[in-house]
Amino acid sequence: MPKLLIKGKNMFYEIHGEGEPIVILNGIMMSTASWMPFIDAFSKNNKLILIDFVDQGKSDKMEVQYTQDFHVEMLNELFDRLNIEKVHLVGISYGGEVAQRFALKYEHRLLSLILSNTTSYTNRMLKDIGEGWIKAAETYDGSTFFKATMPYIYSRKFYEDNIHWLTEREKSFGVSLKQEWYDGFVRLVRSAEDLNITDELSKIKVPTFIIGAEYDATTPVKNQEKIQKRIENSKLIMIKDSGHAAMYEKPYEFAAAVLGFTRIYDKKFKIL
Amino acid sequence: MPKLLIKGKNMFYEIHGEGEPIVILNGIMMSTASWMPFIDAFSKNNKLILIDFVDQGKSDKMEVQYTQDFHVEMLNELFDRLNIEKVHLVGISYGGEVAQRFALKYEHRLLSLILSNTTSYTNRMLKDIGEGWIKAAETYDGSTFFKATMPYIYSRKFYEDNIHWLTEREKSFGVSLKQEWYDGFVRLVRSAEDLNITDELSKIKVPTFIIGAEYDATTPVKNQEKIQKRIENSKLIMIKDSGHAAMYEKPYEFAAAVLGFTRIYDKKFKIL
Amino acid sequence: MPKLLIKGKNMFYEIHGEGEPIVILNGIMMSTASWMPFIDAFSKNNKLILIDFVDQGKSDKMEVQYTQDFHVEMLNELFDRLNIEKVHLVGISYGGEVAQRFALKYEHRLLSLILSNTTSYTNRMLKDIGEGWIKAAETYDGSTFFKATMPYIYSRKFYEDNIHWLTEREKSFGVSLKQEWYDGFVRLVRSAEDLNITDELSKIKVPTFIIGAEYDATTPVKNQEKIQKRIENSKLIMIKDSGHAAMYEKPYEFAAAVLGFTRIYDKKFKIL
Amino acid sequence: MPKLLIKGKNMFYEIHGEGEPIVILNGIMMSTASWMPFIDAFSKNNKLILIDFVDQGKSDKMEVQYTQDFHVEMLNELFDRLNIEKVHLVGISYGGEVAQRFALKYEHRLLSLILSNTTSYTNRMLKDIGEGWIKAAETYDGSTFFKATMPYIYSRKFYEDNIHWLTEREKSFGVSLKQEWYDGFVRLVRSAEDLNITDELSKIKVPTFIIGAEYDATTPVKNQEKIQKRIENSKLIMIKDSGHAAMYEKPYEFAAAVLGFTRIYDKKFKIL
Repeated sequence: MPKLLIKGKNMFYEIHGEGEPIVILNGIMMSTASWMPFIDAFSKNNKLILIDFVDQGKSDKMEVQYTQDFHVEMLNELFDRLNIEKVHLVGISYGGEVAQRFALKYEHRLLSLILSNTTSYTNRMLKDIGEGWIKAAETYDGSTFFKATMPYIYSRKFYEDNIHWLTEREKSFGVSLKQEWYDGFVRLVRSAEDLNITDELSKIKVPTFIIGAEYDATTPVKNQEKIQKRIENSKLIMIKDSGHAAMYEKPYEFAAAVLGFTRIYDKKFKIL
Repeated sequence: MPKLLIKGKNMFYEIHGEGEPIVILNGIMMSTASWMPFIDAFSKNNKLILIDFVDQGKSDKMEVQYTQDFHVEMLNELFDRLNIEKVHLVGISYGGEVAQRFALKYEHRLLSLILSNTTSYTNRMLKDIGEGWIKAAETYDGSTFFKATMPYIYSRKFYEDNIHWLTEREKSFGVSLKQEWYDGFVRLVRSAEDLNITDELSKIKVPTFIIGAEYDATTPVKNQEKIQKRIENSKLIMIKDSGHAAMYEKPYEFAAAVLGFTRIYDKKFKIL
Repeated sequence: MPKLLIKGKNMFYEIHGEGEPIVILNGIMMSTASWMPFIDAFSKNNKLILIDFVDQGKSDKMEVQYTQDFHVEMLNELFDRLNIEKVHLVGISYGGEVAQRFALKYEHRLLSLILSNTTSYTNRMLKDIGEGWIKAAETYDGSTFFKATMPYIYSRKFYEDNIHWLTEREKSFGVSLKQEWYDGFVRLVRSAEDLNITDELSKIKVPTFIIGAEYDATTPVKNQEKIQKRIENSKLIMIKDSGHAAMYEKPYEFAAAVLGFTRIYDKKFKIL
Repeated sequence: MPKLLIKGKNMFYEIHGEGEPIVILNGIMMSTASWMPFIDAFSKNNKLILIDFVDQGKSDKMEVQYTQDFHVEMLNELFDRLNIEKVHLVGISYGGEVAQRFALKYEHRLLSLILSNTTSYTNRMLKDIGEGWIKAAETYDGSTFFKATMPYIYSRKFYEDNIHWLTEREKSFGVSLKQEWYDGFVRLVRSAEDLNITDELSKIKVPTFIIGAEYDATTPVKNQEKIQKRIENSKLIMIKDSGHAAMYEKPYEFAAAVLGFTRIYDKKFKIL
């Protein structure tokens, strides 16, 4: 299992395929394992790099609280150590927050920035949602945690259509999630609490593509539009009939959008 | 304080003004007190009747679990006891669910049916949201309960604009809500779990008006459209820029819609 | 037939009922006759005043081009002559443009301002749509005029559901519309070409209610939101599943919104 | 200039690049020339085939009226003559209608079907819009034609932002469009009048991707959703802030969607 010791912590990563690198930054409850169904498509023409943030998946847990900047520095060092110069950086939700911070600090390392279902500001409602999640996590009870979080993640149609899968998943939460996972989750939530970089986004000049989802009530399309307005020449598409976890509910649309943009990010379309 | 003993329980009600009766059924966390700002406008040309369901406000608490049909029977008996023959029945969220059930059983008592931000089916997501609320309520901790529920109630703009008021309210939860309130709340949530009357709605023939709100992620406009499609000739308007608690976030629009419909519900507009 | 000679032109009007006056200003292709189905509901508790602008319905035709300010002055004089001090002013589309201009000049005569499917600016697209309509009108051919205008007025569902009525209407255009009607129509279109009062709207302080329609592609909900943003404390509701002619496609929702607002425009709802 | 004589008519086409073939079918007022800005991006990894339908661009004019099936047969023969077995077929608006018809008849020739801003049914409103366009075309006057058509093509923001370009284009209509162009345009419009294949779409089993645009009032997103519902496993994305000519208003988003889908159309994403 490939890991690199960075800043005293083991960071887990996977590399698949060859080509312009695509790096994917997970949403808060995700891990490299979440991307298994996408590996084939994303690594066909590209070097796909999956990583677990600290406190996620197979990366080390932290002992102290950190901010998202810590992830940014680890990422930058990871790229150094892997001798990767420039990447397409894809960030989902929490991962999109880190991706924006990375772009603000290390934009020269980006071929393009691709943001999906994310925000540039932890507003008061997101802060309270996070507090609710923390309280649920601190019960260390899988079912309590599941009921407190899932309705924010999926659309109601997906929920209704996949209730058996969700029920199985709820059970698995009780079995597989250990106290240390919940403690890590709480630190991840806290690391996003001070996010407020909307006004800085205008500094980002790298080609940027933004993906929103029609029924994302956690980071609604309005949030994606707010980011688009700030980042010059950034592009936006919307996935219909999907909740916050668009990559999960609509994998084809998500994959088409991401891979399509990596093919045209440096092109000129002089229409007028 | 006017109360009537119905089915062994004291039901609290208030009556204001004279005219065609308008009865308002509360959302699950509301009470008659929530309507204070509306009394003047709603009672000017109408007899406004506010009530607390059992387990709400100043009505008695229950000892055993019940279904929403119990509310229906209490309401019907209340109208008998007050010698009120026909009413405009306005139901908000949970109250809208009871209002639909009432219309299915005692339609002859309705002048019109007005539904706001409600559903005819407790889908799997709503069920899980309810379970999450129950788990939070069972901590008897105001702050835990607040964080678990409020993000589902208000739009993010309202949340952001009124954070000081919300913070005060969170504090007041800790002080004013007692264990028996939370126990009542849990029973109210449970009483809605089996709601599934979508297919019966086509039986409703009374003039029906439905109010949705653009950013209601709990009972989205799609839910309101589903109800509209089932109830023949029912009408629908949407309040922009509001979350689930439309009567709270946009009181003017809500009041205009309700009072407007009570003025034209029996008119014919032969356009074609 | 009640007419008053104002500024050298006969202005046709109708008065129905008693109460706080409601004055309705027609859309460009409408006339007092369009409101027949609404007279009963609107005059029950109010003095309903319907008028034809010059170049509309039974009012005189003009010989020279004018601006919308001419309508404003005629209206103001009409109210003087009828001894009407203050009114609820309801404007539909073109009539909403005149209503906004009236509010900017004679706000002291308004109890409230109610705008439906209108704009504060004849943007370049609206200008070109108008030019297209003028070119079609100048053929004096009913069918050419019908095909050039109707798709901008109705939603596609209404169009599909009422195609027989529309076909009859197309035929009637050929029979009943005379050359002088088309010449009047052209002058009405031209009188709106310079409309650009968005920046002045912030001067309006009278209670204002705005009605948009989901599928209004001519003056989309975005236009209504732009007006709302400018007029302090103005309120907005949206009628679902309707095109530009919301009063025609959804008469109940339209009437409920208008009459509802006239009942609460001067109320206070102190929620927070 | 490459042309092939098919069914007695010269069909103009262009081929750029190598790889899995992508064939683009024009919207009604477009031609191969419209795609110039896209050639670079679309031919980098694919064989891009652009064509002009008869009565379009550099293909021959017709003398008699035809139906869209005629285009289907010409296309099929073109592929035979060029020894092209299977293609990604991309259809825009009118071209999307032909693409659906082609899929219904020659599905075995498709790798994938990509539909943008199109319809499967010429509803009554589209029929009347078409009639209005025909009446304007028959004046042979560039300005009349421009005012009758452009407001249906672009979003109002694009219109406002690009008014100088539009004004130039209006002038060029008067200069460059000859009587025979207008006659061809009229035949093209008429060839779509009987389109009504919604119920047949369920036969299409080839991977299908549909692109809608938020402010497309001519073939609204609802139309795209109707198509999606009928074609099993078809995917849909929506381009924000664009009118009917999405490839023109939002070329990056359009190109990313099309090229992205050609990269993943045959992949499996087993999520659940």
